[in-house]
Amino acid sequence: MESAKGQIPTVAFVAAGSNAGKTTLIEKLIPVLRRKGYRVGVVKHSSKGFQLDRPGKDTYRFAQAGAEAVGIASGEEMALMARLSGEPPLPALLARMPEVDLILIEGFRYEASVRIEVYRSGIAVEPICRKEQGFLALVSDMGVEGVTLPRFHPDDVEGLAGFLVEELLPQKSSPHA
Amino acid sequence: MESAKGQIPTVAFVAAGSNAGKTTLIEKLIPVLRRKGYRVGVVKHSSKGFQLDRPGKDTYRFAQAGAEAVGIASGEEMALMARLSGEPPLPALLARMPEVDLILIEGFRYEASVRIEVYRSGIAVEPICRKEQGFLALVSDMGVEGVTLPRFHPDDVEGLAGFLVEELLPQKSSPHA
Repeated sequence: MESAKGQIPTVAFVAAGSNAGKTTLIEKLIPVLRRKGYRVGVVKHSSKGFQLDRPGKDTYRFAQAGAEAVGIASGEEMALMARLSGEPPLPALLARMPEVDLILIEGFRYEASVRIEVYRSGIAVEPICRKEQGFLALVSDMGVEGVTLPRFHPDDVEGLAGFLVEELLPQKSSPHA
Repeated sequence: MESAKGQIPTVAFVAAGSNAGKTTLIEKLIPVLRRKGYRVGVVKHSSKGFQLDRPGKDTYRFAQAGAEAVGIASGEEMALMARLSGEPPLPALLARMPEVDLILIEGFRYEASVRIEVYRSGIAVEPICRKEQGFLALVSDMGVEGVTLPRFHPDDVEGLAGFLVEELLPQKSSPHA
């Protein structure tokens, strides 16, 4: 497991407003991509902050005592929690990713370079891709006027996964298949 | 926050048997080292495995769906959980540490290069430093026959912190003080 250093393709799923279905979409994409032979990493933006660790755990005690970063590992997995001290969060996470074939990003609308918009018809906000350039595709249960991007229905996870492989992993088709 | 890549001094607190007081000692060392102006990272070995994440959390859902690694970040902190896929855990963690002045390691007796033994008199096991070379010091509430290492009482956290700074951070005395 070597640090990835940014050469791994990334795609961010972004949405105007919340509850557009980003998390569920990414959750469904992972097993489909895995079945195609790709190792997937996921990076999520947390606007409200998050708490993984719990009082009483040794790692929690170290963080409370003032450690900048606390890591834990068994033979099978590792976890690292660290203060960012003003560093931009997305590069900090991407630089620490293990070697995967593709990194799916939830959020980071302004920081991500390759983006797909997730848009739900019931949400009363304007889709971002009507105002901003640089979107790869639109995931929506309906067409959006004035948008000519490739569109995938949220249920068409197979179609979207195939599209991602073609667009982002052209040299790596089914490396483990 | 740049990845550390191993040039940061490390010291591992190891013990024969459990409940020798490693966690408590590290927990007490952190604020003392911070007060001296050093940023501290901590890395812990988990022999039983660990679970930080909880069912229902988005990060948990991504891991359950088959992601190799899941990261989350707010503006202030980040967390990364990853499968190790056979990679050695200690280097995997150290390579991902942010820039700190010193990394305290709990456990990793056989993997760590700079070690301090924590030994408690009530524990009916032989101290490791009587059999193995390469220890920097002994932390114990009593002297151990045949061991001539510098010895610190577990309550002498100030003394131990000063020793660590002298031994491991000679060029960096009180960089932020």
